[in-house]
This record gives sequence, C-alpha cells and structure tokens, in this order.
Amino acid sequence: MKVSVIMGSKSDWPTIKLSVDILKQFHIKHEMRIISAHRTPQFLADYANTAKERGIKVIIAAAGYAAHLPGMIAAFTSLPVIGVPIQSNALKGLDSLLSIVQMPKGIAVGTMAIGEAGAMNAGIFAAQIIGTFNEQIMNKIQLFRKKQTENVLLNQDPTKD
Amino acid sequence: MKVSVIMGSKSDWPTIKLSVDILKQFHIKHEMRIISAHRTPQFLADYANTAKERGIKVIIAAAGYAAHLPGMIAAFTSLPVIGVPIQSNALKGLDSLLSIVQMPKGIAVGTMAIGEAGAMNAGIFAAQIIGTFNEQIMNKIQLFRKKQTENVLLNQDPTKD
Amino acid sequence: MKVSVIMGSKSDWPTIKLSVDILKQFHIKHEMRIISAHRTPQFLADYANTAKERGIKVIIAAAGYAAHLPGMIAAFTSLPVIGVPIQSNALKGLDSLLSIVQMPKGIAVGTMAIGEAGAMNAGIFAAQIIGTFNEQIMNKIQLFRKKQTENVLLNQDPTKD
Amino acid sequence: MKVSVIMGSKSDWPTIKLSVDILKQFHIKHEMRIISAHRTPQFLADYANTAKERGIKVIIAAAGYAAHLPGMIAAFTSLPVIGVPIQSNALKGLDSLLSIVQMPKGIAVGTMAIGEAGAMNAGIFAAQIIGTFNEQIMNKIQLFRKKQTENVLLNQDPTKD
Amino acid sequence: MKVSVIMGSKSDWPTIKLSVDILKQFHIKHEMRIISAHRTPQFLADYANTAKERGIKVIIAAAGYAAHLPGMIAAFTSLPVIGVPIQSNALKGLDSLLSIVQMPKGIAVGTMAIGEAGAMNAGIFAAQIIGTFNEQIMNKIQLFRKKQTENVLLNQDPTKD
Amino acid sequence: MKVSVIMGSKSDWPTIKLSVDILKQFHIKHEMRIISAHRTPQFLADYANTAKERGIKVIIAAAGYAAHLPGMIAAFTSLPVIGVPIQSNALKGLDSLLSIVQMPKGIAVGTMAIGEAGAMNAGIFAAQIIGTFNEQIMNKIQLFRKKQTENVLLNQDPTKD
Amino acid sequence: MKVSVIMGSKSDWPTIKLSVDILKQFHIKHEMRIISAHRTPQFLADYANTAKERGIKVIIAAAGYAAHLPGMIAAFTSLPVIGVPIQSNALKGLDSLLSIVQMPKGIAVGTMAIGEAGAMNAGIFAAQIIGTFNEQIMNKIQLFRKKQTENVLLNQDPTKD
Amino acid sequence: MKVSVIMGSKSDWPTIKLSVDILKQFHIKHEMRIISAHRTPQFLADYANTAKERGIKVIIAAAGYAAHLPGMIAAFTSLPVIGVPIQSNALKGLDSLLSIVQMPKGIAVGTMAIGEAGAMNAGIFAAQIIGTFNEQIMNKIQLFRKKQTENVLLNQDPTKD
Repeated sequence: MKVSVIMGSKSDWPTIKLSVDILKQFHIKHEMRIISAHRTPQFLADYANTAKERGIKVIIAAAGYAAHLPGMIAAFTSLPVIGVPIQSNALKGLDSLLSIVQMPKGIAVGTMAIGEAGAMNAGIFAAQIIGTFNEQIMNKIQLFRKKQTENVLLNQDPTKD
Repeated sequence: MKVSVIMGSKSDWPTIKLSVDILKQFHIKHEMRIISAHRTPQFLADYANTAKERGIKVIIAAAGYAAHLPGMIAAFTSLPVIGVPIQSNALKGLDSLLSIVQMPKGIAVGTMAIGEAGAMNAGIFAAQIIGTFNEQIMNKIQLFRKKQTENVLLNQDPTKD
Repeated sequence: MKVSVIMGSKSDWPTIKLSVDILKQFHIKHEMRIISAHRTPQFLADYANTAKERGIKVIIAAAGYAAHLPGMIAAFTSLPVIGVPIQSNALKGLDSLLSIVQMPKGIAVGTMAIGEAGAMNAGIFAAQIIGTFNEQIMNKIQLFRKKQTENVLLNQDPTKD
Repeated sequence: MKVSVIMGSKSDWPTIKLSVDILKQFHIKHEMRIISAHRTPQFLADYANTAKERGIKVIIAAAGYAAHLPGMIAAFTSLPVIGVPIQSNALKGLDSLLSIVQMPKGIAVGTMAIGEAGAMNAGIFAAQIIGTFNEQIMNKIQLFRKKQTENVLLNQDPTKD
Repeated sequence: MKVSVIMGSKSDWPTIKLSVDILKQFHIKHEMRIISAHRTPQFLADYANTAKERGIKVIIAAAGYAAHLPGMIAAFTSLPVIGVPIQSNALKGLDSLLSIVQMPKGIAVGTMAIGEAGAMNAGIFAAQIIGTFNEQIMNKIQLFRKKQTENVLLNQDPTKD
Repeated sequence: MKVSVIMGSKSDWPTIKLSVDILKQFHIKHEMRIISAHRTPQFLADYANTAKERGIKVIIAAAGYAAHLPGMIAAFTSLPVIGVPIQSNALKGLDSLLSIVQMPKGIAVGTMAIGEAGAMNAGIFAAQIIGTFNEQIMNKIQLFRKKQTENVLLNQDPTKD
Repeated sequence: MKVSVIMGSKSDWPTIKLSVDILKQFHIKHEMRIISAHRTPQFLADYANTAKERGIKVIIAAAGYAAHLPGMIAAFTSLPVIGVPIQSNALKGLDSLLSIVQMPKGIAVGTMAIGEAGAMNAGIFAAQIIGTFNEQIMNKIQLFRKKQTENVLLNQDPTKD
Repeated sequence: MKVSVIMGSKSDWPTIKLSVDILKQFHIKHEMRIISAHRTPQFLADYANTAKERGIKVIIAAAGYAAHLPGMIAAFTSLPVIGVPIQSNALKGLDSLLSIVQMPKGIAVGTMAIGEAGAMNAGIFAAQIIGTFNEQIMNKIQLFRKKQTENVLLNQDPTKD
C-alpha cells in the first residue's frame, strides 16, 4: 500500500515536498519520480501502466504551465490521481490550474489549490482516500485534524507569533 | 458502502445528474441531498458529521457562485470530498471553480472541471476511490474505460454522427 | 454595542489590523477572533450563533483563497457581515474576492476591496452602519471624512512628501 | 426611515427590481431614482448630499460597465452604500464588479454579487443594517431566513419542480 | 508529403473542418484521425511515433478544455505540431488556449487562435511550413493572400453584403 | 492653451510624471492637481466645471483601483479626457483599466495602457490633440517621432546597452 | 476637416455604425474605409501616411481579436487615433481591448470601451478633439450632453419604457 | 538557409536570447534585428517584404504588451512566423499573449508560451520547420530530444541539485 508522488520537473520539489511531509507524518509509504509528460512521455506511460501492480493506491502528480502530467497519468491508469498545479512564472499558476482541472468527460483528476496549499492538501487527500478502507489511517487523519483545530483555538491572539 | 451526492440548489440537478448516472452504471449505492451551505448551514454540519456512521465512503458536492458547500462539508468530515463547480451565470463558473479548488492548507477538496464534464468525472472519481479497496468496482471502471477507448477508435469518421 | 473582527488565519492580521485601527479611532468597542471556516467550523457556528446576544452589531470577517469565512458567518447570523478578501499568493486575491462577493441569493456579505484598502474601509463601513442609528458615531465619521478631504486639498504638491 | 434604491440606467431595472421586492416584503419604505454618474453628475451630488436629511438610512446603488455610481454616491454622503454590479454585455459584469468593489482607502462600498443574486441580497443587506437598531425588522429578517431554510429542507427531491 | 489533422473529439469537427478546407484548397494531401489524449493515450503514442515514417510533414491538433492532445503529440514526435484551441463551454476556450500554448521548455507547439479563426489559420500555417521547401505551395499561398487582399480592397462599402 | 494633469493620489506621481516630462519636452504649458474622486468629489466637480474657462484644452487623469477620476472629470466637462490606469497592488491595474475604459454610452475617456507606458503616451496623445489645430506642436511631435524611429534603427545590437 | 472611420472587417460595421451616427448628428464630415492590418498592410500604411494631407483630423479605428489596426495606424501617422475594441467571439473582446489599449511607450491610442458603447463614445471623443479648436462643434457637444442629462432627469420611472 | 530573430525592443533580449542559443546549438544561421512595429513600421514592412529573397526560411518575432510585431511581420511575408509573447509588467504577458495568438482569419502566427519557455521553444520550433525538409537538422533535433529525455531519467532525486 503505497502513494506515488510524481512531479514534472525537479523545480517542483520545494512545493511538492509538502505532500511528502504529510505522508511521512501519517506513516504512509510512498515512492517519488520526476516524470515530464513532454520530455519523458514513454516513461510516463510505462510508469502509469505498472503503478497498480507495484502496489500503488493513489498517485499525486504536480506540474506547472500547460500541465499535462496529472491528466496523462490518469489516462494510463485507473488509480485515483490527485493533481497539484505548480505556481508558474507569468500566469501565477492559472495556466497550471486550468490545464489540470478542466479535464473533459471520461478521465478525472482530483485537483488541489495552486502551490503549497495544494501540495499539503494533496497529501491529506491521498490519506483520506486510503482512510476510506483503512481505519488506522482514518484515525490518524482525525487526530491530525483535531490538533489542527485545537491549534487555531489555542492561538487566538493575532498580535503574538 | 455508499456515495453521497449533494448539491447546493435544486437548479444544480441537470448538471449533477451526470454523477448519479455514472454511479448507477457502476451499481454503486448513493443518497442525494440538497444542502445549501448558506441557507441550511446547520443541516450541512449535521449531515457531514453523521455521514461516516451512515456508511458513506465518498461525498460528491456540487455548488455554484461563491460555492462553499464542498469546502464546508470537508470541514465537518474526514471522508474524501469531491467538488463540482456549477457553471454560474455571469462569470461562467470561474467563481465556482476558484471558491472550491483554492482551499487553504489543512482541508482538501478534490475538484473537478466546471459543469457537466466535472459532474460525470466526479462519479468516475468516486468509483476510483472505492475501487482502491474494492476489486469489483475497479474491474467495472477498467471495463468502462476500455469501452470508452474503443468507442473513440471505432468512430474515426468525424463527418458521420 | 460592539463590532466583531474575525480573521481566517493569524497571517491575516497585518491586513485586518487596519480595520481595528479605524474602530479604535472612532472609539467603537470590538472583539477579535481567529476563526477558520475549514479548521474550526464548529467554533464558527457557535460564535456566529451567539454573536447577537453578546451585543455584537456588525461583523467584519477577513479571509483568503477559497474564503468561506464571511459567507458562513453570514449563514449562521442575521447581523450584517462585512467581508474583506485577503490578497492570496498565486491569484493575488481574485480567488478570495470571488469566494466572498459572489454569494448566491438569500445570504448577503457586504464585500470590500482586496487587501489593506478593503480592511481600512471595512472599519469605516462598520462605523457607517452603526452611524445609521448613532448620531455620535455619524458625527465622528463626518469629521474623519472632512479631515480626509482637507488632507488632499492641503497637500497639492505631488513632488513633496 | 427609508432606503434609497438608485440605478445608473433604466435598463438596470429588471435586475434591481429584486432589491425592491425584498424591501416591500419587509415593509421598508424606499424611494427610487435613475441617476447616471456620467450623464447626471450634478444630480448625483445633489441627491447624495441631501439623502440623509430626507430620512434615508441606507442607499442601494446598481450600475454596470465602468460603474462609478455606488462609489461616487458614497463620496458625497456618510450613509452606508450597497453596490450592485450589473451584468455587462462583453465582460459579463467583471468590469462592473471591479469598478465597484475595488474602492481605494477612505470611502467604502459594501458590494454584492453580480446581477440578480446581488440585487436580491442588497435588499436583504439593507434590511440587516436597519435591523441593527430596529428589532421589528430584525425579526422579519429572521423569519424570512427561517422560511428560506425550511424551503430547502422541505424540497429535497431534485427531480421534482 | 502529407499533413495530419487530428482532433480530440468528434465534436471538434465543425471547427477543424476549416483547416481541412484550406488544405484542400492548396491541394495538400492530408489524413484525419480522432485521437483523445485521455481516452486513447496509447493510440496517441503509436500514431505520433509512426507519423514521420508515414510521410507526414506537419501535424495539426485541435482540442478543448484541459487540451493535452497537441502537447502530447509533440512529445512523441519531432515533427512540427500546430495546436488549435477549441472554444470550450464554460471558459470559452481560455482553458484550451492556456493548456496548449503554455508549454514548458523543451517541447514546442505552434498555437493558433481559439476556434474557427485558429482552425483556418492552422491550415494556412501548415501550408507555410511546407512552402519553406516547396515553391509550388509557396506560390499558392502567395496567390491566396493576394486574393485575400484584393477581396478587402474591392469590397469597401460596409453597408453592402 | 494648457494641459491639465491630475492624479487621484500623491502616490500616482512617479507614474504620471512621465506625462509631465513629455509636455515639458514639447513646451506645452500644464497645471497639476491631486484630486480624489472619492475623497474630494466637490473639488473634482468644481475643477472640471471651470477647466475650460481657465484655458485648459485637454485633461490627463490618472487613477488606480476602482478608478473613477477620469470618468467623473469627463462627466463634468466637455473637454477631451485622457485616462491613465495606475498599476494597483493586488490586481496589477486590471481593475484600474476596466474602471476607466469601460465607460457606458454617452461620456468618453480616451484610455491609455496601465502604468508608465500609459502615462508617457498620455502626454503624447495630449500633444497630438493640440497638434490637430497647432502646426507648431504637430511639427514637434513629428520630430519627436522621427528621433524615436532613428533611435531604434541606430541601436540594432541587442547585446549592447 | 474630416474624421476618418476605419474598421478591420466588414463585420465590424454594425458596431462602428454608432460612431458614424454621432458624427452625422454633429455634422462632422467623415470618410469610411475597411482596412485589415493583416490582410491589407500596405493599404494601411498608404492610407495612414496620406491621411493628414487629405484633411483628416482624427481617425477612429475599430478592430477585434488580436486587433492591430488602431496601433498600426497610429504608427504611420501623427494624427490622434481612437481605438474601438470589437467584441470577439470566444474572449468577448478582452483580447481586442488588450491588443489596442496596452500600447508600449512611444505611440498612443485613445481606447474606448468594448463594443457599441465604445463605438458611440469614439464618435463623441472625435468631436471633443475637434471641439478643442472649433467652438461650433464644442457648442454642439454641450447641447448634446445637456439633452442627454435632461433625458435621464425626465425619465425617472424605471417601470415605464 | 537562415532564421530571422527579431524583437520589438532591446529589453526583450534577455528573453529572446534563448531562441538564439538553440539556433546556435543546432548550427542554424540566423540574423537579428530590433524592429518596433510602432516606432519603426516602415522598417518592419521593408524587412518583412525582403526577408524571403535574403534566404530567410522562418522568422521568430518576440514582443510585449499590445504586441503587434509578429502579426504585422506575418502580414507582409508568406514565411512562417513564430511569435514569442514577452512577459509584460502589469499584466504579466497575458496582454502580449492575446495580442499575438488571437490572429483573425487569414494570417497565421505560430505562438509560443509567454517568456523564456516560449523563447527556447521558438528556437526548437524553427528548427523543426527546417527539419521538415532537412534531414541533418531533423537528426540534431532528435538527438537534442533524446538527451533531454535522458537528462530527466538520470536525475531522479529531487532533493539533489
């Protein structure tokens, strides 16, 4: 039972690292790959085609600009794919977001917010998917969220760090 | 094992019906509710709080304009929530999309495309989530996708209906 | 007679501080809370449900990204809610603005500009609402605006600071 | 105690009528004017300057395109001004929205959604402002919202009209 | 010497037909395929991989929404690929355009305008590419453009059809 | 014969200075004012009403955010008004641009580009308007443009400063 | 003393006709041409180069999509050029607007609103430019505006046509 | 056999340099010019008119803001023109992109991504066009792409530089 975390370019790492941090926190095994939809399309096809048989349950795919990685991974596998739009330079990730979320009928990508919030939430969402059939992970998520709630409630003075 | 399909308003039905059609095709049980984040916030809280104990595994939530339904459902439950942005009148769903997908750190919504494509894909994505721990559903998805592929390959003449 | 100033996250404080500065300037009592629609949804419901009985007259709510705080506060109370869209990282607050202003029929949020201008104006607008039934506050607003006008008229040389 | 409902052009009437319908439903007195910021600027100044002394408590101002009406009314009076962006032809009200909501520091406009939802909510928001000092109106709002909630709860079958 | 004209869906035909009309007008041989990047990814790979050896010189690829077809074709072949963004339903082709044009470094797609203008110009651009090494085609283009110019010059009365 | 250069706020000076630089270069007399449509609406009305009788021929008006200054000046005078959208903080001047250029039927503002390019061009356009009836100014414009052209032609090495 | 009214395509006529209507109303002589920046670039250059010597004082240029006509006319003449962005099909004139208004430093186009409002205002603005040195035209503009104001003031019932 | 690389302004050089770097890498001869559509329109016409006879096969044209250079070059020549939108200051190149890509029917520009990615890809696309009739260049492109692919495959650890 593993989550795959793939990114379109090494430069996406500082963002997508937040997905990995969450998976580590939940002790969910994961593998990482750098797969460019455009520069390594055959690797993409091979990787997605064999993901299920290697025990992957969910795939997190991050990419920027005309971001084809999440949608193309989803095209080659029936595993759920979570897309993370990387904040691009000129259009600030609006291009990445629309390229990932606006999938036409037939192939779905569960899309997260642009950038770091999306990356962190992708880790949480992957855990939630696993949590649908794994009570242990579900319990960890509930604990994580309980702490997250308490953290807000206990730090009510905005003028203090 | 059920999928919940909720919508912010009765007027979202013609769109979100496509999610239900997919769930029926895969023989996945589902329940439907009309829950307005703004007009029935307490119902929203109660519904989301008790969804898991009623056997819900995944929630599909569709809403338009400043669409708060998917994010607020996700705030009250640890089940995975799939958001479907309804095409709004003036801004054509750009408002719905950003209100659903741009979730800040800590609570995730797996967002689909605006409108009918998003609704159909939400049904598929819900099935994929269930398919991660249910081989029977996974097989149905793979069959569905095989037919979908064949349908393109066998209808190669664009000038014929 | 109090104004409530709430924010979705501690990081919103440098912006929303400008609302508080205005309220102080007008000697309007206020209380502050950090309430995350997504991380503390029950706190949100409880806070909004009891705001009126605690003497709150107006609520200023600031939030960023898929900003659900102002709309959800408005869903749980009949007090007027003023929304302040926080400037987000990637989309520069366009997501925050549309998530706050594009409320569907039935629940209203009086929305201000993105960022600091909106925060300052939220303070002024809260005072204006109170001023509709409180001549003393109305007089203070008129004095504030008179000075504001004079300040422009008396500093007509753009090349001098 | 009256609400003023003004519009930039006669063509805004089918939209802004929804504000008036709400005011009538709450039995709040109102007056209507067609005031073009660009074609009748002196009328605008005179109207806004004398609104308070005529017993106006809140002003609802609707306008489209480069919509200057709400902001300019707010510039000439200290009464709270609610802005309703009319859906324009080419840009679908995005121009109207930004022209109304993005007010710089010092003068506030409480902005509603583009088009009919915004118009209806402007009526509600005007009532909420009056409700801050008028228990009778506040009670009417609460009743209105209770019915609105029940209406959703009692009509849960999306396939029926 | 052939041009390939591919489209993501049969519904793109009324648009992309304009490319074919131009190719016919210039007597350039062409083949047509319906290839969905998402529903037929393996067909896409196979088609692009073998295009050059079948005598294809240029590929015109039209797709809408999160349009991955042109970029993925370009990923599998070194032939020049011309992308035509199809006008989508909600976002009017802005999603299609950004998904096609915003290609990251390393793989290029020569992108045309959204919709019919882009489709017609794709045919012209394909001819221009062939015209760089084929004087006969270049002459046809120059004649086509000469007539196009004359057509404007000879029809100077805008009130007449 | 004078050009009026007005700005909504002292902070617009670094941008609008480029208009003044051009006017000085053409030896066109000008006067400068800081006029806030929102904070000094009466000053705006008085200034615009008396501009013509003071010998003003053209008015350049720069403003940012919900920029009402150019349109309101145009509402109070029949002199040609040139609008310069100032680059705003969050929306980068898109709000300023739409608030200035999208004037409804009946009152016109000749709008320039956002920011410095727009400010410089506003000076040139003011000179062009005066040049329609003043050969001396027209000659200066033609000389300015001749030098501008030569400057490009004589500096053809992009790698040299 | 003439105004030139040019359009990029015959299909722009229903829009730009509103400029001509205004010019006729003010008895300002005008000539019309259909000039496509892209299909008749040499005609464009020749026309612009000789406009001044033919007695043209102001040029109104309307175009849609990647609208190069107004900017290129302005590049070839020192006469003031007024740009009218035609509402395009997919992007509703946002492309036309940005292609016309965002002129870089050195060449100015006085840009109007997208579509019919812009076309009508272009006629008024052309008259205002001529009015700077022609009292008769200035008087006509003032009369036109007086009537326009009265028309609003005398038709204050929005429920009547 | 040469590629022409032109830019609208010297300030475009740091971006468009990436096109030149690719051409050098492929040993494709090229010439560079600074041609401003607006400041040197006659030079533009002359340059484009004579490009073919000087042995130019493809033209890469980069420009920002209301970018008319690529479209106008394409209007004066039948050679294929590749457009590179330069990232502008306020609108981050969205204006440049739409001004280049949204060409109306009849004249085509093969448009690349905004900024550096687009510049690099323009060099590759120019090589691909030449590669359609020059096996040697085609081989170089295939080698370049093979290395590009290997570079991703061999650097799979995102945490290492």
